[in-house]
Amino acid sequence: MKLEFSTQVRVRYVDCDQSGFVYNGNYATFYEVGRSESLRQLGHTYKQMEDDGIVMPLVNQYSRFYKPAFYDNLLTVVTRIAEIPKARIRFEYSIYNEKNELINEGYNELIFLNPEKVRPMRAPEWFVNLLQNHLDS
Amino acid sequence: MKLEFSTQVRVRYVDCDQSGFVYNGNYATFYEVGRSESLRQLGHTYKQMEDDGIVMPLVNQYSRFYKPAFYDNLLTVVTRIAEIPKARIRFEYSIYNEKNELINEGYNELIFLNPEKVRPMRAPEWFVNLLQNHLDS
Amino acid sequence: MKLEFSTQVRVRYVDCDQSGFVYNGNYATFYEVGRSESLRQLGHTYKQMEDDGIVMPLVNQYSRFYKPAFYDNLLTVVTRIAEIPKARIRFEYSIYNEKNELINEGYNELIFLNPEKVRPMRAPEWFVNLLQNHLDS
Amino acid sequence: MKLEFSTQVRVRYVDCDQSGFVYNGNYATFYEVGRSESLRQLGHTYKQMEDDGIVMPLVNQYSRFYKPAFYDNLLTVVTRIAEIPKARIRFEYSIYNEKNELINEGYNELIFLNPEKVRPMRAPEWFVNLLQNHLDS
Repeated sequence: MKLEFSTQVRVRYVDCDQSGFVYNGNYATFYEVGRSESLRQLGHTYKQMEDDGIVMPLVNQYSRFYKPAFYDNLLTVVTRIAEIPKARIRFEYSIYNEKNELINEGYNELIFLNPEKVRPMRAPEWFVNLLQNHLDS
Repeated sequence: MKLEFSTQVRVRYVDCDQSGFVYNGNYATFYEVGRSESLRQLGHTYKQMEDDGIVMPLVNQYSRFYKPAFYDNLLTVVTRIAEIPKARIRFEYSIYNEKNELINEGYNELIFLNPEKVRPMRAPEWFVNLLQNHLDS
Repeated sequence: MKLEFSTQVRVRYVDCDQSGFVYNGNYATFYEVGRSESLRQLGHTYKQMEDDGIVMPLVNQYSRFYKPAFYDNLLTVVTRIAEIPKARIRFEYSIYNEKNELINEGYNELIFLNPEKVRPMRAPEWFVNLLQNHLDS
Repeated sequence: MKLEFSTQVRVRYVDCDQSGFVYNGNYATFYEVGRSESLRQLGHTYKQMEDDGIVMPLVNQYSRFYKPAFYDNLLTVVTRIAEIPKARIRFEYSIYNEKNELINEGYNELIFLNPEKVRPMRAPEWFVNLLQNHLDS
């Protein structure tokens, strides 16, 4: 099975700026929801990861905006994990509107920080296994 | 001297929703800036307070919206500390636009949480002294 | 039937500040979701209202914070419309965490602005009828 | 003279997430402040541009995160306009913390939409002149 997950977000009034379009910075939040719900679909949560003391800051992020999203749109966020992570994990995102038009694509890379938040670490073994098991299933 | 402080915030594009008005929830942020800059004008910072392990969550908040604020407006946030705090501290806010019209008034009350964030505590003595010294000056 | 509606929001990482608690200003967004989903449950949407040229700015908002909400919590937002609106509409909110503890209560009042956004108007007749029909059902 | 402008932003409590770091999506807001204050330093404002009916949505955005930013940090946002725009304009950003460490770099490209927000247009002539005059000065 592929490491590809799908979830939906409803655009809120607060998400749109005065142009009527979703403000560009809010796509970072849609990506966050995509990551978060992907982990949940894998049977884990990012909350549990943080409870284990692991923080995952971004090292980069790229986004292409094809079409605007509007208030009350029900967007579909497709999230892919490109490959089993070592020191960093790459997520790729495709966002579709209700007409199934691709409105945004992007990716970002995150690292794993140890509990003291000062030293990068490798992806935890249980996490790698979780992804590998899903790929093999 | 009164415990009254003034600071300015420039309305950002992200602050406005598609009505063209500043989104109501963002006034909470303007209040936060008002509190934060008041402490700085008193010679302290909320950051130092957190470094000492004290967290100050809100227990309530009230806001009246008289006139909308718009993108790029330079707002003046006047923050008052009503009285020397004991277990909770009350901040009052008046926000003016560039025509000096009162566009928003509000207040909120915050408590002092000990470092473990589970038990309310009284206002730290040094903080009470800081306010008292300002009042007496 | 009462004008009481229930919906759920999942707390996002972006919603929480460095205390680990949901930032107070974000409750305004939870209230917005409560209003928006209430209208949808009534068979209408706030989007359609805006498409008809009506904008509904807040005139006031009050919030009491009983307990913090945390990242990944699935909150239940109960929204009540206190009475059939005339010139303004009052929404009341109760937010519960997953243990069914009441963590936040609040209300706000909104007015109806005509399409030019300069003059308040009475609640549209079709909207009053929609609420009345729900009450009578 | 180069098309390079500098402005400062104070990190707010609302900007930081529970890791204590500024949430990644908020760098888009810092970039917005950078663009907005660059135009102001050129003697114009983005507000005037919108008053003329021009909206400038993003077509892409890239960001690299080198070091975290923290609550109450006073960040310096350096904004560069790479070249005189034709159909799209490219902004480049470098963000420094108070130790003058480069913590974030990024760029984005925006297009010019005509007032009906449906058709891209070329950069307005007065805007091109404004940039050219600054370069020549």
